[in-house]
Amino acid sequence: MKVVIIGVGLIGGSIAKDLKSSGFANSIIGVDENVQHGEIAISNGLVDEMKPLDSAIQDADIIILSTPVEVSKNLISGILDKIGSKTMIDVCSTKKSITDLVKNHKNRGRYVAAHPMAGTEYSGPNAAVDKLFENKTNIICEKEKSDSDSLKISLDLFDTLKMNTNFMESNEHDVHAANVSHLSHISSFALALSVLDIENENPEDIKIMAAGGFRSTVRLAKSDARTWEEILLDNSENVLNALDIYTSQLERFKEALQTKNKTMLNQLILDSNKIGPIVDSISKSAEEK
Amino acid sequence: MKVVIIGVGLIGGSIAKDLKSSGFANSIIGVDENVQHGEIAISNGLVDEMKPLDSAIQDADIIILSTPVEVSKNLISGILDKIGSKTMIDVCSTKKSITDLVKNHKNRGRYVAAHPMAGTEYSGPNAAVDKLFENKTNIICEKEKSDSDSLKISLDLFDTLKMNTNFMESNEHDVHAANVSHLSHISSFALALSVLDIENENPEDIKIMAAGGFRSTVRLAKSDARTWEEILLDNSENVLNALDIYTSQLERFKEALQTKNKTMLNQLILDSNKIGPIVDSISKSAEEK
Repeated sequence: MKVVIIGVGLIGGSIAKDLKSSGFANSIIGVDENVQHGEIAISNGLVDEMKPLDSAIQDADIIILSTPVEVSKNLISGILDKIGSKTMIDVCSTKKSITDLVKNHKNRGRYVAAHPMAGTEYSGPNAAVDKLFENKTNIICEKEKSDSDSLKISLDLFDTLKMNTNFMESNEHDVHAANVSHLSHISSFALALSVLDIENENPEDIKIMAAGGFRSTVRLAKSDARTWEEILLDNSENVLNALDIYTSQLERFKEALQTKNKTMLNQLILDSNKIGPIVDSISKSAEEK
Repeated sequence: MKVVIIGVGLIGGSIAKDLKSSGFANSIIGVDENVQHGEIAISNGLVDEMKPLDSAIQDADIIILSTPVEVSKNLISGILDKIGSKTMIDVCSTKKSITDLVKNHKNRGRYVAAHPMAGTEYSGPNAAVDKLFENKTNIICEKEKSDSDSLKISLDLFDTLKMNTNFMESNEHDVHAANVSHLSHISSFALALSVLDIENENPEDIKIMAAGGFRSTVRLAKSDARTWEEILLDNSENVLNALDIYTSQLERFKEALQTKNKTMLNQLILDSNKIGPIVDSISKSAEEK
C-alpha cells in the first residue's frame, strides 16, 4: 500500500512509524511545508521520501491529512478534487467544521473523518514514537457519508495502529472533545499562567514546591501553541460552554472557602471523587503518550 | 530509636515503612482513632503495636503527628504539654495556623514544623508505600524556634527518607503551597465536576473520549475529601487569592475565544509554555506517587 502523509509531525510521523513497521505501507511519501521537518522525517526513517503535495497524491492509495486544523481545512477540498478512487483520512481534533466544509463535495465518499485520540505534549517529527496509538480510542464521524471501501481501508488502518474505533456524529464528537479534552488543556494553560504570574519574582520557588500533583495538572501547558490555538478557535462555541461550566464550579469552591462552609466543600470534593472509576479506566501508560 | 506515629494513613504509614526498613526506628508505635486503620497498620507491618495516645507518647523518642490538619491542631498543645525532652514533628500540608497555635507554648522548642511534600491520590494505611518520599522536597518552617537537638534529629529523619529539606517561614510556605499545590487540586476537582455535570446523561461517553491528557489533569480529583477540605479551609485566604488569579486567567481565554482573537490566544499559550522547564525538572516518577 502506498501511503501519503501530509504533515510529518507528532501524529503523522507516529502513524508513519506503525504503518511501516507493520507492513501495512510498503511506501510512505511525506508532504510538509516545513522543509526542516521533512529532512528530519527522512533522516529519522519516518518516510521514504518527501514530495510536493500534487505529485505525492498522484501515486497514493491512501492520503492521511495530519496538519493543524486550519491547514487541513485549507487543503481538503483541493485534495478531494483530485482524489479519484483513492481514500483520504483527516485526523484533526475537531470534526464539525471540516466535515461541513466538504459535505457537498462530489467526492465526499472518498473521505473518512477521523480523530485518533492520542498525543503528547511534544510536537514535530522528533516527537514521533512507535505505538503511540495502541489501545487508544479512535473516533470516526459521519461514517455513512464515506464510501464503504474507503471506510473499510480506514478501519484496517486504525486496526493496524491497534486503536479501538467508535462512531459519532461530528457535532457530538466536538461537544465531547470540548468537555473532556479541550477544557483540560485550558485548565492546564491557565494553571501555568497563574503560577508563573504569582511566583514571577522567584520562579525557582515553584520548583521547590512543585511535586507530582502539580506536574500532573500542569503538564498539558507544554502543548504546542499553533496546534491548540487552532483547535480551540475551531471548536470555540463548545469550548466556551464547557469553560462557563468550569468557572461556575470554581465559583462554588470560592463560595465554600469565603463562607468557611465545610459541609459544602466536603460535598464538592466527594462529588468530584466520582470521577475516580473513570480515571482508573484510562490506562496510566496513556498519560505520558 | 522509638518512634510514635499518630495517624497511620498514607503519610504516617509510608514514613513508618521507611523508618523501619532503614533501621532508623527499632520500634514503631501507632496511634489512630480509627480502630480498623490500626488493625490494618499492624497486619501490614507498618507498626509494631497500636496504643492509646498518652501511653504511646510516654515511651517515645520522636512523635510524628500525621493526622488531618484539624485533628493535628486539636492534639498539638496537649502533646507539647507532656513532651519533656522528646521531639515532635508535624507533617501537615499547611503550616501557619498550626505554628501560630503553639508559638508561645513553653515547650515550643521540642516541636519541628515540617511538610514532607509527597502524597498520592489514595489514602489510609493500605495506601502506604515504600520510598514515597525519596528525592522529594521537605519544607521545615521556623527552624529557629526549634531546639537544635530537635531540629537535628528531625533532619536525620528526613535524610533517612531521602528527602531534600528546604527552610521557609510558615506564611511563605502557605502562600507557595496555595499557588502550586492547593490550586492544582481545586482545578482538578472543578474539572471533574464540570465533566460529570456536562456528561451526566451518559458518563460512559467520558470514557470513550478520555485520553492521557484528561487523566493527567483530573487525577487529583480522586484525593481524599476530609484531608483536602481541611487543608483548603486552613489555608483559605491564600487559596482564594490564587483562585482569583486562576479565574482571571480563564477569563482571558474566554475573551480570546469570544472575540476569535488568534493572536491573543497564541500569546496566552506561548506564555503558559514557559512552565515547561519547571515541569521537566520534576521527576515523572513523582507524578504517580
